[in-house]
Amino acid sequence: MKPMGPIPPEFAAQQGALIIGGRSASAWMEGRDGPLFVYDPAIVAARVARFRAAFPTIDLHYAIKANPFPPLLAAMAAMVDGFDVASSGELAKVTDLGRPVSFAGPGKRDAELTAAIAAGITLNLESEGEARRALAIADRLGRTPRLAVRVNPDVELRGSGMKMGGRPSPFGIDAERVPALVRDLIAAGADWRGFHIYAGSQALDPQAIIDTQAATIALAARLAEAAGQAPPLVNLGGGFGIPYFAGDSPLDIERVGAALTEALDARSEILSDTRFAIELGRWLVAEAGVYLAHVVDIKDSGGERFAILDGGLNHQLAASGNFGTVVRRNYPLALAHAMGAAADQTLSVVGPLCTPLDRLGDRIALPRPDMGDIVAIFLAGAYGASASPAAFLGHGPADEVLAR
Amino acid sequence: MKPMGPIPPEFAAQQGALIIGGRSASAWMEGRDGPLFVYDPAIVAARVARFRAAFPTIDLHYAIKANPFPPLLAAMAAMVDGFDVASSGELAKVTDLGRPVSFAGPGKRDAELTAAIAAGITLNLESEGEARRALAIADRLGRTPRLAVRVNPDVELRGSGMKMGGRPSPFGIDAERVPALVRDLIAAGADWRGFHIYAGSQALDPQAIIDTQAATIALAARLAEAAGQAPPLVNLGGGFGIPYFAGDSPLDIERVGAALTEALDARSEILSDTRFAIELGRWLVAEAGVYLAHVVDIKDSGGERFAILDGGLNHQLAASGNFGTVVRRNYPLALAHAMGAAADQTLSVVGPLCTPLDRLGDRIALPRPDMGDIVAIFLAGAYGASASPAAFLGHGPADEVLAR
Repeated sequence: MKPMGPIPPEFAAQQGALIIGGRSASAWMEGRDGPLFVYDPAIVAARVARFRAAFPTIDLHYAIKANPFPPLLAAMAAMVDGFDVASSGELAKVTDLGRPVSFAGPGKRDAELTAAIAAGITLNLESEGEARRALAIADRLGRTPRLAVRVNPDVELRGSGMKMGGRPSPFGIDAERVPALVRDLIAAGADWRGFHIYAGSQALDPQAIIDTQAATIALAARLAEAAGQAPPLVNLGGGFGIPYFAGDSPLDIERVGAALTEALDARSEILSDTRFAIELGRWLVAEAGVYLAHVVDIKDSGGERFAILDGGLNHQLAASGNFGTVVRRNYPLALAHAMGAAADQTLSVVGPLCTPLDRLGDRIALPRPDMGDIVAIFLAGAYGASASPAAFLGHGPADEVLAR
Repeated sequence: MKPMGPIPPEFAAQQGALIIGGRSASAWMEGRDGPLFVYDPAIVAARVARFRAAFPTIDLHYAIKANPFPPLLAAMAAMVDGFDVASSGELAKVTDLGRPVSFAGPGKRDAELTAAIAAGITLNLESEGEARRALAIADRLGRTPRLAVRVNPDVELRGSGMKMGGRPSPFGIDAERVPALVRDLIAAGADWRGFHIYAGSQALDPQAIIDTQAATIALAARLAEAAGQAPPLVNLGGGFGIPYFAGDSPLDIERVGAALTEALDARSEILSDTRFAIELGRWLVAEAGVYLAHVVDIKDSGGERFAILDGGLNHQLAASGNFGTVVRRNYPLALAHAMGAAADQTLSVVGPLCTPLDRLGDRIALPRPDMGDIVAIFLAGAYGASASPAAFLGHGPADEVLAR
């Protein structure tokens, strides 16, 4: 038997039928042939409230790459101070929501730069070449471009799932070349918006985030002094992790917030009028989503039992352990009608795809499932539907719904 | 510097402009903003011809999961003896092509069984429970179902990229339970079509495939004798690998074919009238596909150089090393205008996605690229477009085209 990760607190204490946003999983699945993602915006709102209490002076940006489902974006527009996008496709999803938008991403095409400058959003420049292209496009459009500089920091986020700093990188501009670029942008007449500094993601160690944020503020101050210009905004990145696997502990964001307040109280004079933002994706939405699928077969083979679902890695690639993971571990799963029930079976939960990669729960303990039962896979609110190969093997995408 | 895998023979000898299906890569990309998959059916036809010569008495099935692009399927209808599908979505793509179809997959829904029985195709049954459901549905439809039994073999394919036999499995029915099921199917009035036995995929060692095929034939004979019934067809599975990485050698299929002829000459009496099929996906189509993308930025960071493309793991997840791979290795890549040119740069080729996972070539040797150049990623004909998270980060799917 192998362990599963922790069920998010809003669901972990439930007994009997799993309730999501006031309705049972079976009510959500009524009459449905196929899986469903359900997102509860009340859970997102609770995460936002917790962030606001811990970081009272910091702007909160939502990185929509985590979950770009349009009804969720509409619900979040009133909760956050801005959206961060990573393509013109993502930009199109937020342009009508009336919130500030910034655009980062290492491979922006000319058409994407044009769309961003025409929309008046902030571009986080990733290279000197991109800066030249953006200035030329703005000139052609007769617009003053809003340009921030993404910095490849000389620090990494210790313990993060994905490190994006402290090494050669396609993301951002090496710190030592940033001051000259800032001066060039201002000389070219751009509206320079500040710095975007993203050192890593999915960290659970508060001290690692505290150290990275302190280093990021110090770096921003050094760069601003070298450029001779105070940045209007410093985006400190994100990196807030959530517990996916057995042994993971939730991040103590209150401790991070207290330390950030102290670090900002002590910041250099040149940053005194600067606003600071934190950009979060996964931490805001992952725990708000549940993926529901039906048991379509139960079989025994070689002394092991398998429950086979009508959805798998085609909808939940990360849960199958095939997306940036070296060692496969189990996400939290449950039988949706039997929350809290005694787990008296060891079985593997697999998807319908004709490949051994399609395994969602490897030798986990569950109550005995029956055909037609609904299995819930938690932590499905981030990097689920949009980050999975929905066309693979022809089963088609899963539906998504916002609970409200 | 890290090595790349071998460029397929049809392209490896080219000098200067890369030609695919008689047109240069730059001609294929003319006027295009974004990446493109180009598939050359002549290369598929060459693989089919090679198969036919090596396996003159064996049926050839195409497993469309490898590449279900409809124009490619239409071109292949005249080349192969049948299509193997893994969902009703895949079934819908081949029903009008006039070829025999069989359907395998561990999580078939009732609606899928219904569609398959109504269409008169062969179902490869994956469990006794699925057999009961199929018989009940056939009864309701008033149809005689065409049912084969997928066997979970007691042998594995040594050295295969994915093992699907010799262990507890969601695929097929453990061999010792198969004879009873066959008798039940026949007693229930089904048209029993035989066995489907798939032991693994992506093997490059001919002796491993030879041994597996011999064991599979022996297993089919034992099962048939125990069931007291000769199988009309035995699908021997596939498992033919292609060389993806440095050090991989092409599979010697002629040696496999000669050994299979010998093994069949010596087969048990009960299989004397049985047809045999081999089911191939990747081996037929992977080398026929090339993924073409533009260089949108070139940047230096920390002493390393990066070429950033307008497509990445959103179209070519497997090439990024994030799909069922433990150790990331480089697929073969080239600058499409400079085939055969001296590689005087070491650089990494990355996609446009704002994640460090999006790396297509890690510290490879190439001629110096320029902005706007076209990069070719080979081995893109299988498990590319349809097996990648096309919605991830909002860049949208890549176009596909059949060269002819």
